[in-house]
Amino acid sequence: MQPGKTGRRRFLKESAALAGLTVGTIGSASGQAPQKAESDGEDFRAYGSHSRFENPRRKPSGMDPEHPGGGTGSGASLTPLQDSIGIITPSSLHFVVSRFRNAPPDLDPQEHRLLIHGLVDRPLIFTLAELKRLPSVSRIHFLECAGNGSPVERRNAKTVQETHGWTSCSEWTGVPLSVLLTEAGLQKAASWIVAESADAGKHAKSIPLEKAMDDVLVAYAQNGEAVRPEQGYPLRLVVPGWEGVNNVKWLRRIKLVDQPYMTHSETTQYPSIRPILEGKALWFNFEMEPKSVITFPSGGHRLPGRGFYEITGLAWSGRSAIRSVEVSVDGGKTWKHAELQAPVLRMAHTRFRFAWNWDGEEAVLQSRCTDEKGVQPTLTALAKIWGVNPDYFNTTLNRINHFNPIQPWNVTRDGSVLNGLF
Amino acid sequence: MQPGKTGRRRFLKESAALAGLTVGTIGSASGQAPQKAESDGEDFRAYGSHSRFENPRRKPSGMDPEHPGGGTGSGASLTPLQDSIGIITPSSLHFVVSRFRNAPPDLDPQEHRLLIHGLVDRPLIFTLAELKRLPSVSRIHFLECAGNGSPVERRNAKTVQETHGWTSCSEWTGVPLSVLLTEAGLQKAASWIVAESADAGKHAKSIPLEKAMDDVLVAYAQNGEAVRPEQGYPLRLVVPGWEGVNNVKWLRRIKLVDQPYMTHSETTQYPSIRPILEGKALWFNFEMEPKSVITFPSGGHRLPGRGFYEITGLAWSGRSAIRSVEVSVDGGKTWKHAELQAPVLRMAHTRFRFAWNWDGEEAVLQSRCTDEKGVQPTLTALAKIWGVNPDYFNTTLNRINHFNPIQPWNVTRDGSVLNGLF
Repeated sequence: MQPGKTGRRRFLKESAALAGLTVGTIGSASGQAPQKAESDGEDFRAYGSHSRFENPRRKPSGMDPEHPGGGTGSGASLTPLQDSIGIITPSSLHFVVSRFRNAPPDLDPQEHRLLIHGLVDRPLIFTLAELKRLPSVSRIHFLECAGNGSPVERRNAKTVQETHGWTSCSEWTGVPLSVLLTEAGLQKAASWIVAESADAGKHAKSIPLEKAMDDVLVAYAQNGEAVRPEQGYPLRLVVPGWEGVNNVKWLRRIKLVDQPYMTHSETTQYPSIRPILEGKALWFNFEMEPKSVITFPSGGHRLPGRGFYEITGLAWSGRSAIRSVEVSVDGGKTWKHAELQAPVLRMAHTRFRFAWNWDGEEAVLQSRCTDEKGVQPTLTALAKIWGVNPDYFNTTLNRINHFNPIQPWNVTRDGSVLNGLF
Repeated sequence: MQPGKTGRRRFLKESAALAGLTVGTIGSASGQAPQKAESDGEDFRAYGSHSRFENPRRKPSGMDPEHPGGGTGSGASLTPLQDSIGIITPSSLHFVVSRFRNAPPDLDPQEHRLLIHGLVDRPLIFTLAELKRLPSVSRIHFLECAGNGSPVERRNAKTVQETHGWTSCSEWTGVPLSVLLTEAGLQKAASWIVAESADAGKHAKSIPLEKAMDDVLVAYAQNGEAVRPEQGYPLRLVVPGWEGVNNVKWLRRIKLVDQPYMTHSETTQYPSIRPILEGKALWFNFEMEPKSVITFPSGGHRLPGRGFYEITGLAWSGRSAIRSVEVSVDGGKTWKHAELQAPVLRMAHTRFRFAWNWDGEEAVLQSRCTDEKGVQPTLTALAKIWGVNPDYFNTTLNRINHFNPIQPWNVTRDGSVLNGLF
């Protein structure tokens, strides 16, 4: 969906030759370049890293490590979306949510095994080398914690890293779980799997067999190299489009069972308690709904002055590909379509871009995306779906999952950008 | 192009339940996992890295740093394609070819400027911050040194890192050069650009204006973060599909001119001297031709025994998208289509996969790709195109660019894999 050159030219002319953008012009072509490097840096490295002038960093979440809402010693570390570019999240900056410990288990790939057992004809144990000989696929998918942007934290959040940083997008490679399950031989009674981690808390998750046989991967690689320790080295499940908690890291065991196992995580952290459910909890709510957010400009950015800016952000949905993204720069009165960066992939971050001339007045910037099933709701629309008064989101102390309302960013006259949701 | 589940099932059954692949089976489902992590590793890091059990490394090329064929103190560092997975090369492992110095210049992004001048109406100087405010695009493209796999080095090469490691693939983000040139205002006489680096040797390259206005990017980001120092931090040209030398790193100047400038690099390193040209040199030969190579199994790998293996590799072309890849496991007698990993993108690495049951006998593995204009040639066919005897490639001491013959890997009975080209 890259715009044609004609569109670009017209666009730049309309914006009065980048009005407001201070482009230095010089009177004559001197042939002299403005800068010459005086010194060289480090040697070419066998395994490179970023420039010493850059300092990209994940950020610990506001979760109290002592009382993170059910786990023991949970850790979360958020992707700096305010600096995100394109659709691939560098593996070094992929968000981390981990129950029970603040450090990943230190697993030796020579020793690690994956057990597949339960309601199967042939229980199997795989070494990593064996798994790597099997048919593999690579797919670009986002992961997202179900609690990404929960009101409890979002009310006090200033930056998009704090409001939405529990999501990242990678090229994952591994063996389709369907290959392994077929090889093990499914028994008729098998209708769920329980996937278990090798971490100290033995995190485990029940997943319906239909999904397990559809598009789930047993992944050993992320963005062209081994899965990183914080993302589950040497093996993790990738369960496209579903709550992050399903993507079991440090995967060591898959048991075929005839019902969900109601594991610690799924009973304490992830059920949805909503007033409309009349006291009952929604145990399972797998698919992540359509969500989008403007990453530039976003909370904490400061616009240096009026003139042209490219608004950009990310949209994603656990249900399908993103069909369209609209942007409003006037507090929701009018909406216009943003450009989507190709390729637009199913259950992957989708980058959108939107040309904007800021007139220096107060503005409210918002994005909303549409997937194959519907549109991202406003806070008010979401309250209606949930059967609550919108004030519920302002006041609840519960951790709310699947919270996907449109995120407004308020631009003030001095160019500051502030969280405008609450 | 992910295969349907039906195909997978049938395939696995045909291969007699992974014949030859030692999958441990256990007699009963014990419910005990085979491994429990005893200790935890380091803390979740703000900027993560790979597991301590992995050691991915670029490798210096065989080029003599004192006499690298024309430059002074050139450095080259090759991507470990034998371990490549998917299509994205980790930025830390992107190949490096650099003339004149073995270390990248240490450029302060606050101080760096890009000058656009020459045959333009309004010479312009951009800071990095100004460039980042302009309309941007992201695209996944390969880069490749024109000399990738030149016979001089390939004759002695053992691994695919040594035969083909001068290519990598990234998601690049930046401003279309057409936006900047349009803003500067092209004068009628302008027909070429000369792009210049801020490195100590002032590497420069002439590029026709038609390409400059088509799909060239002034890139500031690679795989979701700032371009790495070895790849041109803070700015580089990305010239999709063309010889790597055009993708000027540490970009500081673009001059609009009315003819190519015959810079040091383009006159000493990159002209093609071919017998068929009768003593004349081919000055410019921009587009990289279709090329493919099997990355697993490849030179230096050792197959542990007969049975099922997934052959995989990469294909790319500077002229278009890859249309198809075929694999032969019998020395070229028969060829069958490989699966292509979606999305298949223009001027990007394309991952292919091919199921193979090794019978334990000697085998010759080869891949050949087809783009929109033609098929990758055998060594003999390439010699014909060049008007030489095939023995020319075996004996020449010249560095040959655009050398894209099919690469055979010989599998011996003990499972060793050897370079079979010469």
